[in-house]
Amino acid sequence: MFSGLSHLACSTCDKTYGTEFRRQMCECGSPLFVQYDMDSLKREWTRDQLAERKQGMWRYHELLPVTHPDYMISMNEVMTPLMTLPNISKDMDVPLLLVKDESVLPTGTFKARGASVGISRAKQLGVKEIALATNGNAGAAWAAYAVRAGMKSLIAMPTSAPRVPYLETCYTGADVRLLEGTIAEAGIFVADYVLQTGAYEVSTFKEPYRLEGKKTIGFELAEQLSWKVPDVIVFPTGGGAGVVGIYKALVELQSLGWIEEGRFPKMVVIQAEGCAPLVRAYESGEKVSTYYENAETIAYGMRVPKSLADAHILSIIAKTEGIAYAVSDADIRKERQNIVRLDGFHACPEGAAALAGVRKLREIGFIKASERVVSINTGSGLKYVDQIDCAVQTAQEKI
Amino acid sequence: MFSGLSHLACSTCDKTYGTEFRRQMCECGSPLFVQYDMDSLKREWTRDQLAERKQGMWRYHELLPVTHPDYMISMNEVMTPLMTLPNISKDMDVPLLLVKDESVLPTGTFKARGASVGISRAKQLGVKEIALATNGNAGAAWAAYAVRAGMKSLIAMPTSAPRVPYLETCYTGADVRLLEGTIAEAGIFVADYVLQTGAYEVSTFKEPYRLEGKKTIGFELAEQLSWKVPDVIVFPTGGGAGVVGIYKALVELQSLGWIEEGRFPKMVVIQAEGCAPLVRAYESGEKVSTYYENAETIAYGMRVPKSLADAHILSIIAKTEGIAYAVSDADIRKERQNIVRLDGFHACPEGAAALAGVRKLREIGFIKASERVVSINTGSGLKYVDQIDCAVQTAQEKI
Repeated sequence: MFSGLSHLACSTCDKTYGTEFRRQMCECGSPLFVQYDMDSLKREWTRDQLAERKQGMWRYHELLPVTHPDYMISMNEVMTPLMTLPNISKDMDVPLLLVKDESVLPTGTFKARGASVGISRAKQLGVKEIALATNGNAGAAWAAYAVRAGMKSLIAMPTSAPRVPYLETCYTGADVRLLEGTIAEAGIFVADYVLQTGAYEVSTFKEPYRLEGKKTIGFELAEQLSWKVPDVIVFPTGGGAGVVGIYKALVELQSLGWIEEGRFPKMVVIQAEGCAPLVRAYESGEKVSTYYENAETIAYGMRVPKSLADAHILSIIAKTEGIAYAVSDADIRKERQNIVRLDGFHACPEGAAALAGVRKLREIGFIKASERVVSINTGSGLKYVDQIDCAVQTAQEKI
Repeated sequence: MFSGLSHLACSTCDKTYGTEFRRQMCECGSPLFVQYDMDSLKREWTRDQLAERKQGMWRYHELLPVTHPDYMISMNEVMTPLMTLPNISKDMDVPLLLVKDESVLPTGTFKARGASVGISRAKQLGVKEIALATNGNAGAAWAAYAVRAGMKSLIAMPTSAPRVPYLETCYTGADVRLLEGTIAEAGIFVADYVLQTGAYEVSTFKEPYRLEGKKTIGFELAEQLSWKVPDVIVFPTGGGAGVVGIYKALVELQSLGWIEEGRFPKMVVIQAEGCAPLVRAYESGEKVSTYYENAETIAYGMRVPKSLADAHILSIIAKTEGIAYAVSDADIRKERQNIVRLDGFHACPEGAAALAGVRKLREIGFIKASERVVSINTGSGLKYVDQIDCAVQTAQEKI
């Protein structure tokens, strides 16, 4: 059995759907989640079978929604490393800190995971054109995988999206549209576009399969830590597919009996002070978030005024005794520079935000010195070189 | 035995040196190469022992010059993937084409290999400050690993060096100097600087250990192809450490008996028409190259007017029945766009130059359709986004 794909289930109500046709969201307006035949998988699939397989996210194909290898659109994704940052670790007094470095994936961000699985599944469903709203990096990833699959893509992003992913997306030949406002306005444009053209919308949580790619971070993490989950996982959060994906992965691994039943890491959602809808909801004890007006942060990937899965994310935080916490742009800038100056590692601002969060949460005692903490670096610092300010100095001037 | 390190030998004359002190080049002015105790390694080390080890270049530590793991400065380098480019493959009629994608290494280029081993060995030798001349990417890599090792670094690059690696290097806190001219002028500055300060010069071939890092491409390649070397290896070439390193790796693997004795891939050196000293020497049957005046190309990593190892590179080409071949900047630009438009892969210009070379060499019959070809993508396309030209178009204008 290449995949244990079973059906789709609403994340909120009790509706279920078959997998044979394209689906977007549930009729009730909530995201759909992919379900697998766990009983069969439990019988037929063991951890030991992984040893023989190639590194990378597709090694977990039984828990991915593509039912035949012919539809796999892969760009040889590596298993992303768990990095140590020895000096940052010391500086923060978090001795057991690891950073899962997603920058080594194709197109330089964790968005490649969702794009690889999402495009593969779209190909299996006969899709010829995809459309999505993005802050930039998802666009670059989906456009690249779409090319690989021979599909057209329409990518809508805010005019304020960073220059690098914009250029990357254009370079693939995708149809790129720039919209005033945030990703929310780009989303409205895409919704209208798919109504008019019949393109398949693949914006975060608008279809069920991107999440399945994202969850492979959780599988890799568990395997890399010898099937022991860490105490804390810290994710810089915009749409929240990463958090939801990792949690789903851990639930599935528990149900296979590959990791300890009922033990979850504290799931920590880091947002920017300029765009912190989940933090605001968490702090006021709400079950859903409110649209965050005038959202603004230098960590563009986290500039999502309201996640479609906000209720689900807040429930994950509650269930795992996690937290939602906001850091300032100044903290992000400072931490990004700390990381490269202390450990030579060039994080993206979102990854730096997560580490700035680790620092603060250690200071207030939420994170203990004895805890194994995994912080996610979602992408390459190279995507944001424009934020680096260096005075040009010639040898002549200097000597 | 963590390392089989034995001694240093000149690449040209018959002088040898011990490894206990810092060394730069041989007294005769040629690069020094690291030698290992192959007899002991052959007795004590088998291919099977690799299975248990972590992925990445340090898994071959017996053939690296660092004699104790305490000195290893690593940033969790992954084993770089061998990518397929199905549509480019078809388009060029090179069915067995693979691209070794070095962009997933720390700082986004193959320079990380040399920097990781070079800095580790420098640390073991008690070095406190390194200095090097670079077209940009080596600077970014060495500065990052130097930070990790607690060393200072002086990085000299041409004022025309690309913006991204310049910014990356500055960001680490390195002392960056910009010089008029090419890497040759930067080299003169560095030579003077080390005389005055006692810093350790680590420019290409100026010390023996960078090459040892570079050669791990060859080890990985052989292991990934189940210890069968390909028919052709295509390397975009500036200083040439990559070509020399891979060849050295294959000689060592042969001497261990891990790969077939005496069988080498044709080693193909690709240069840019605007800076092709090795091609000119190869075509006129010279044993060394002449300084290439007014060197200029968009593939900055290949802008090296004269390699310190030119004689060695030319002899490798001769011994393996390879070739040195030049492509134009227009070819490079076109191929880079082809790759991303056909297969969604964002190569760097140097990697695109190598593939443009594959295309031409297939056209003239030097490469046969039946041959297994490995082309090296030396770095991330993100380093060169400034070369991408996209007209900004807003949704409003377009609809």
